[in-house]
Amino acid sequence: MTLFGLDNLPYGVFSVKSGVRRIGVRFGDAVLDLTHLGGVFQQPTLNPLMSLGHPRWAELRAQITEQAPDLPRIPLDTVSLHLPFDVADYTDFYSSEHHATNVSRILRPNNPGLPPAWKRLPIGYHGRSATVVVSGTPVERPHGQLGVDVFGPSERLDIEAEVGFVVGTPGRRIATGDFAEHVFGVVLVNDWSARDIQAFENQPLGPFLSKSFATSVSPWVVPLDAFASLAAPAQDPRPQPYLLPPGPALDVDLRVEWNDTEVSNPPYAQMYWTAAQQLAHLTVNGASVRTGDLYASGTVSGPAREQAGSFLELTSNGEQPVKLADGAERSFLLDGDTVTISATAAGAGGARIGLGEVTGTVCP
Amino acid sequence: MTLFGLDNLPYGVFSVKSGVRRIGVRFGDAVLDLTHLGGVFQQPTLNPLMSLGHPRWAELRAQITEQAPDLPRIPLDTVSLHLPFDVADYTDFYSSEHHATNVSRILRPNNPGLPPAWKRLPIGYHGRSATVVVSGTPVERPHGQLGVDVFGPSERLDIEAEVGFVVGTPGRRIATGDFAEHVFGVVLVNDWSARDIQAFENQPLGPFLSKSFATSVSPWVVPLDAFASLAAPAQDPRPQPYLLPPGPALDVDLRVEWNDTEVSNPPYAQMYWTAAQQLAHLTVNGASVRTGDLYASGTVSGPAREQAGSFLELTSNGEQPVKLADGAERSFLLDGDTVTISATAAGAGGARIGLGEVTGTVCP
Repeated sequence: MTLFGLDNLPYGVFSVKSGVRRIGVRFGDAVLDLTHLGGVFQQPTLNPLMSLGHPRWAELRAQITEQAPDLPRIPLDTVSLHLPFDVADYTDFYSSEHHATNVSRILRPNNPGLPPAWKRLPIGYHGRSATVVVSGTPVERPHGQLGVDVFGPSERLDIEAEVGFVVGTPGRRIATGDFAEHVFGVVLVNDWSARDIQAFENQPLGPFLSKSFATSVSPWVVPLDAFASLAAPAQDPRPQPYLLPPGPALDVDLRVEWNDTEVSNPPYAQMYWTAAQQLAHLTVNGASVRTGDLYASGTVSGPAREQAGSFLELTSNGEQPVKLADGAERSFLLDGDTVTISATAAGAGGARIGLGEVTGTVCP
Repeated sequence: MTLFGLDNLPYGVFSVKSGVRRIGVRFGDAVLDLTHLGGVFQQPTLNPLMSLGHPRWAELRAQITEQAPDLPRIPLDTVSLHLPFDVADYTDFYSSEHHATNVSRILRPNNPGLPPAWKRLPIGYHGRSATVVVSGTPVERPHGQLGVDVFGPSERLDIEAEVGFVVGTPGRRIATGDFAEHVFGVVLVNDWSARDIQAFENQPLGPFLSKSFATSVSPWVVPLDAFASLAAPAQDPRPQPYLLPPGPALDVDLRVEWNDTEVSNPPYAQMYWTAAQQLAHLTVNGASVRTGDLYASGTVSGPAREQAGSFLELTSNGEQPVKLADGAERSFLLDGDTVTISATAAGAGGARIGLGEVTGTVCP
């Protein structure tokens, strides 16, 4: 039973020895080369395809499904995978109630609980699009000011396991009901975070250098049409009209591995704010989204420790280290550590589909 | 005495009736058309020129200076001016001590004074590059959540008068001494801000929709080489080594007009952190800058009320309205209001040079 069957067909950008970037879809353990379909498939990024709009995406997906048996098939282990799209603006949300509650308790023990606006709107901020990198790119430990008169490599390097949404069709003031007209597909995101840099720089304008050194994304963009649409969890208080109806929830189960040890299983389906609500909020002020915009869900955490989407939560701010399979203990990331986030989701066809993985190794 | 003589020659992108975008330099009240110089000048944006690097910028500037009498001259009032460069990442700093002190006193009366890290590093955050627009673009009043159960058009729409730096040469971990190798030129920036949206959304990740609806920039990019380099103001405590030497201060005098009434004169020369320090900080963690990155100084405010770079400060959060020339009073912006920020600077040649203006009119 493959997670990458005809009901999935995620798009990516690959190259073989020649180095020329081509567009393909993943099918089982192979890449189907779409080059000879011409047009938007003869490009080095998915952006031209993504700009075509939902009706055309659906047509092309049907065409690829039909022609799959005849498309050139290249073994996955012989290709290099590249950043699949040019990132326009990168935005990150903060929409897991469990994560926001955990972080408040850990970082603001004197003032725990959700920030005042948290249940009124999906809180978010802008990140750095220049440093969005594809899975596999080494992550250099960032340097910065860790406190007053302390400069050096971060000692509290962390991950954030997230689900990212890639905008195809530009727009402004996008209704939640138009979500699927604008969002082309879904990737996995690791929003690497330096907690010591973050704590020092954070006031009053939010995270900056603590997040801007690297944000890794998975190489396969799973079309939104491949996902089953679930009813979103109830929201209380009732959101503002521009955030309703909430749009679909997606049943994405994440898995976080730290050096080959599975350490958590964050449940995306439990997020408080949906991706449709995030897009509506992002654009309600009149701001535009463009082809290639990436917005991420925010760290996905469930109620249990083993559902934590960050090591800050998993280790209670480093106070309760986790034991890895080789017996070593970890609180935050050491040089040489590898983190791999993978996921499967409920597919529109009934079976589960794969999102692949986003991995990265920390280097000094 | 022109502010746009041979010692200035700022670059811009213009069109005449045909609509085709061309590159020119401003010279007096005319545009010198650079199209026939070929190469990077036969482009619709400055990005290819900006990517060439400082040695080539200097050569081309010398060439244009020499050939200026022979270049086609088009009256300024017959051209349309466009966004001069494609914006990659947009970053905004917060580097005026007077502004940060004023804002703390106004918005956090129970906890005034600078944020803990303020004198240790140039605090900043990422903004939205999609909504950077050229001077003259109408600014639609943003809608948003203004408080619990309150949604509607912002009632506290404000400006922020800033100086923006445009990156030409990509880089990482840029030393302050390499500032002029990487920064191509300077623009004026109005970072329009909705104070009510900002107050509600701000915790804990900083400004988001309150700033993302529009950021206006002036159409002329003044080459960094056109500015006189002044000694930067003293800094106490001594900054971390990566922020030293501080790099040059620029003597830019801003002027803010609210519907034809001059309301303030923010002095950029008094900024606490220099643009060279901002660039060094932005990249010290390993983050890269790209051709087309824009980073802004943060609101420029001096110690006196009539040097305020925002109306929040000018009117003490709306409590002390200003009287305009026509007798009308204002606290924040009304629909139909126009704000124009203009500036001159000490030029490398000894005389003052113009930065032109960034203007915008608020519409519903």
